[in-house]
Amino acid sequence: MTRILCHQLAPRVGDLEHNRRLSVQAIDQARADVVVLPELVTSGYVFHDKFEAESVAIDRHDSLFDEWAESAARKGALVVAGFCERGDNGHLYNSAAVVDGSGLLAVYRKAHLWDREKLVFTPGDRPPPVLDVHGIKLGVLVCYDLEFPEMTRSLALAGAELVTVPTNWPRSAHPDDERPHELVMAMAAARANRMVIACCDRTGVERGQAWNEGTSIIGADGWVLATAHPTGTATATVDLAATRDKTLTEHNDLLSDRRPELYP
Amino acid sequence: MTRILCHQLAPRVGDLEHNRRLSVQAIDQARADVVVLPELVTSGYVFHDKFEAESVAIDRHDSLFDEWAESAARKGALVVAGFCERGDNGHLYNSAAVVDGSGLLAVYRKAHLWDREKLVFTPGDRPPPVLDVHGIKLGVLVCYDLEFPEMTRSLALAGAELVTVPTNWPRSAHPDDERPHELVMAMAAARANRMVIACCDRTGVERGQAWNEGTSIIGADGWVLATAHPTGTATATVDLAATRDKTLTEHNDLLSDRRPELYP
Repeated sequence: MTRILCHQLAPRVGDLEHNRRLSVQAIDQARADVVVLPELVTSGYVFHDKFEAESVAIDRHDSLFDEWAESAARKGALVVAGFCERGDNGHLYNSAAVVDGSGLLAVYRKAHLWDREKLVFTPGDRPPPVLDVHGIKLGVLVCYDLEFPEMTRSLALAGAELVTVPTNWPRSAHPDDERPHELVMAMAAARANRMVIACCDRTGVERGQAWNEGTSIIGADGWVLATAHPTGTATATVDLAATRDKTLTEHNDLLSDRRPELYP
Repeated sequence: MTRILCHQLAPRVGDLEHNRRLSVQAIDQARADVVVLPELVTSGYVFHDKFEAESVAIDRHDSLFDEWAESAARKGALVVAGFCERGDNGHLYNSAAVVDGSGLLAVYRKAHLWDREKLVFTPGDRPPPVLDVHGIKLGVLVCYDLEFPEMTRSLALAGAELVTVPTNWPRSAHPDDERPHELVMAMAAARANRMVIACCDRTGVERGQAWNEGTSIIGADGWVLATAHPTGTATATVDLAATRDKTLTEHNDLLSDRRPELYP
């Protein structure tokens, strides 16, 4: 069984030092095998412009990852968290890091950029990874990526059991008795692929921007197992090995039932 | 504006004559531009075996389609309804017919077969159609097809504004305060593609099998506009032309934001 924790933090835009302390503290406090933190937790989100983002971008050799690793090592945990990345080519990426006690294991660069992110970031040019770590097949997406069913499907086809999704979901209008649409889409993706999906949203108000605070861990049947309301953390213990079984009935397996020859 | 109506009927398995009357009456009663009836409304669903299904299979020249057309003509309506099809090759298909006052316009054969359907039907070998009829770009799926995001995406890429989905959703376990998972998936598909989706489920209990009775019309934002509870019909009036605009923000268009080069 795998214990997953999402910590719905409120980073401060442009304040690397504050966000460093905040993220390290969150990992220190977590009692979980997998800890997910929000998108761009190192930097905040609502940049005035590209220059401001550049001022808080870090590269893959940044000492922050050593601190995350040190904290993760004490827990034996895996950490997935968003950061504002300065690539070797000087471009900025909206990235997610996967870290464990041994250090930075992988970086995924968000492929689908939302709104004004397009003025700041370069979109990633690699498919999302499925890592084989700590006995888990771990997939990573960032926020708007999740709204493209092709992305969750590609992770499922590559064997992902758990998809971790650092997000910043801008507060959006929805009927009072409905969840944010992003969460409905996450539930559908979990069910369509029989994977666990852990979305870590953020909180706070940043330059007038509020968030959906929709942090949720969704089981492979598509139902929400845990949210961060009202404590700020969502935790769930799940059997990830069970997600390998894609059987729906005696005659149905959701991956082998696919008809790729009919798809565009 | 287009008025859509789904009529959640209870056909009787094996009783062609009863189901003929039931379906014609439903079209006669409908005050709508598009009328959607359940999957296999002509035949019922829970066949003992392939031989029983063969006994109620009809071909595309069956007079039933003339009756549907005659009724549709009085309304100027489009009708989408499921039927048990005997192909020219003698195979059985779980099909949906699109009919208007001029007759049978198109047939779509379900490509993803559910459970014991695989013992009875041959899966369709053509992608789902998008018809340009009555000023509407009309897509058609049948039931389990909808659980494959590739199918809804393929319809969106082909320009569908409205996806009609005759279904028979077998009653399934879900948390009390949740919708059936099929409906969550339909909501996500509507939102992911900004299309209207009209699912017509069935009612009644057939050989011990109950149904989700989840008939719903879902708007292009992904929210349920109408259900068949408690009247048995769901109706909604929608602006289908508005679905052509896939813009989400000044910088986002959900189809052009796709990154096909990263998808499997």
